[in-house]
Amino acid sequence: MTTTKFEPQSPDYARLVRNVFERTPFIVDLGIRLETVDAGYCVTSLAVTDRHRQQNGFIHAGVISTMADQTAGATAGTLVKEGCNVLTVEYTIHFLRAARGESLRCEGRVIKPGKSISRVEISVYINGADEETLVSRAMVTLAVVQYVGS
Amino acid sequence: MTTTKFEPQSPDYARLVRNVFERTPFIVDLGIRLETVDAGYCVTSLAVTDRHRQQNGFIHAGVISTMADQTAGATAGTLVKEGCNVLTVEYTIHFLRAARGESLRCEGRVIKPGKSISRVEISVYINGADEETLVSRAMVTLAVVQYVGS
Amino acid sequence: MTTTKFEPQSPDYARLVRNVFERTPFIVDLGIRLETVDAGYCVTSLAVTDRHRQQNGFIHAGVISTMADQTAGATAGTLVKEGCNVLTVEYTIHFLRAARGESLRCEGRVIKPGKSISRVEISVYINGADEETLVSRAMVTLAVVQYVGS
Amino acid sequence: MTTTKFEPQSPDYARLVRNVFERTPFIVDLGIRLETVDAGYCVTSLAVTDRHRQQNGFIHAGVISTMADQTAGATAGTLVKEGCNVLTVEYTIHFLRAARGESLRCEGRVIKPGKSISRVEISVYINGADEETLVSRAMVTLAVVQYVGS
Repeated sequence: MTTTKFEPQSPDYARLVRNVFERTPFIVDLGIRLETVDAGYCVTSLAVTDRHRQQNGFIHAGVISTMADQTAGATAGTLVKEGCNVLTVEYTIHFLRAARGESLRCEGRVIKPGKSISRVEISVYINGADEETLVSRAMVTLAVVQYVGS
Repeated sequence: MTTTKFEPQSPDYARLVRNVFERTPFIVDLGIRLETVDAGYCVTSLAVTDRHRQQNGFIHAGVISTMADQTAGATAGTLVKEGCNVLTVEYTIHFLRAARGESLRCEGRVIKPGKSISRVEISVYINGADEETLVSRAMVTLAVVQYVGS
Repeated sequence: MTTTKFEPQSPDYARLVRNVFERTPFIVDLGIRLETVDAGYCVTSLAVTDRHRQQNGFIHAGVISTMADQTAGATAGTLVKEGCNVLTVEYTIHFLRAARGESLRCEGRVIKPGKSISRVEISVYINGADEETLVSRAMVTLAVVQYVGS
Repeated sequence: MTTTKFEPQSPDYARLVRNVFERTPFIVDLGIRLETVDAGYCVTSLAVTDRHRQQNGFIHAGVISTMADQTAGATAGTLVKEGCNVLTVEYTIHFLRAARGESLRCEGRVIKPGKSISRVEISVYINGADEETLVSRAMVTLAVVQYVGS
């Protein structure tokens, strides 16, 4: 797959994205970490514990969904101007197999940046780089908005 | 909207669905509660706290997604035979407006049950029954499988 | 289902929407007709012929998809300002049962209008008003853009 | 992207898939052709004419959707047993840019085959191999069913 190189709109994009990520209470609470921040590309990780699971011991779809959504926001956020923010409009997520295992890795790739709408593809893998298996794929639509906040 | 009445396949469906719900660690951890269990229809609720929010104080999309997914599972689960289980194949979720507020209510409705595939529609509202506002809509595809577990 | 009443942004919205519909070559070619145009609500119809079918005689998913997409555009278009246009960003469509029959009816409802993004829900029924059956449900995201054209 | 190699379940899969494709009236009517049939991978093409367009001269989203759906069916169909058939359960399609141009090329890849459910990713490009541009991406869920028909 050829990957288009994207030009960031702010020289400070990595710090801005990391700053939002680390101030998001639900993400801090779950333990999702931002591992890589490039222009149009992010990686996050999660060390799975018992609280992240469903009744049969699999990782709960809501955990994977949260990771997908948050990673999509970070990924789209690398390509917006300073003072802008991204909001999830909608996403579709596919669960390809039951997710057993101790760790999740999530990759986000911008497939179409835009001034008002950005599209990101998400892949979620279990169990690290050596023997990882794709468990979910998502397509995310995000709106680029002027940041309004304190 | 006319609602088709569905016939449950097990007389004990409400207890079975409630039992799975209450043994799901991630749902217990988040505080999502099962309020109503009818054949092809479920309602869940969440009292939102600070940990459920994103960086601007809105309810995190991952919380809403988790609620949608879990409620869809419960809803589809009301129409399967005893000894069967449902797994989320995929879902699409739309975020219609930023979700401020202190409580979420989520309704699931089966729109097409099936022996192997079930489809559920989800509506998520903020702030209770009196003045509630629709914040999310989802469509969920679930697979009906033979339960394998301890 | 309570239906919110929407205010059209142009007094001439019905004529504008009908005009676009009737100048769309692929829709004219397939024979899809615009039956009803209200603010935030449209109905279209199709008299199905052999060319609209797949190999087993069912109506082709592509025909239903085309009808869903076009109806969503008309529906969202009823709520935009004159001089604006809508473009489909993405949609999800569910096929609930194989579509046999001689006619399709498609309803579009705006569930969230917006200055830049509009969301429309679509229901597709077979065989007319008397004994019609839901065959598809879709959720459509549309972008509202300044019209550029001749 | 590493591509998993899939084992076809029937030695005759290419002929079976081609046979269904060429007996599908709506696809023949539109002029969509099956170019490549491998195990878990198909390519289709369309020479675009005026009838395939919308009011501004772009290729209609319904044409792209039909191509995506049909290609997904062919792609999933390469991995099912003889006597089985695939039906589209649902799909999500993203339109990344307005599709100008004279020809479409559509690629389908199985990302998760299954005995009862198959998942296919679709990429649609305009204007051929030399300078082609991605215009749409879709994720398709298909059910594998026993073929019933003449």
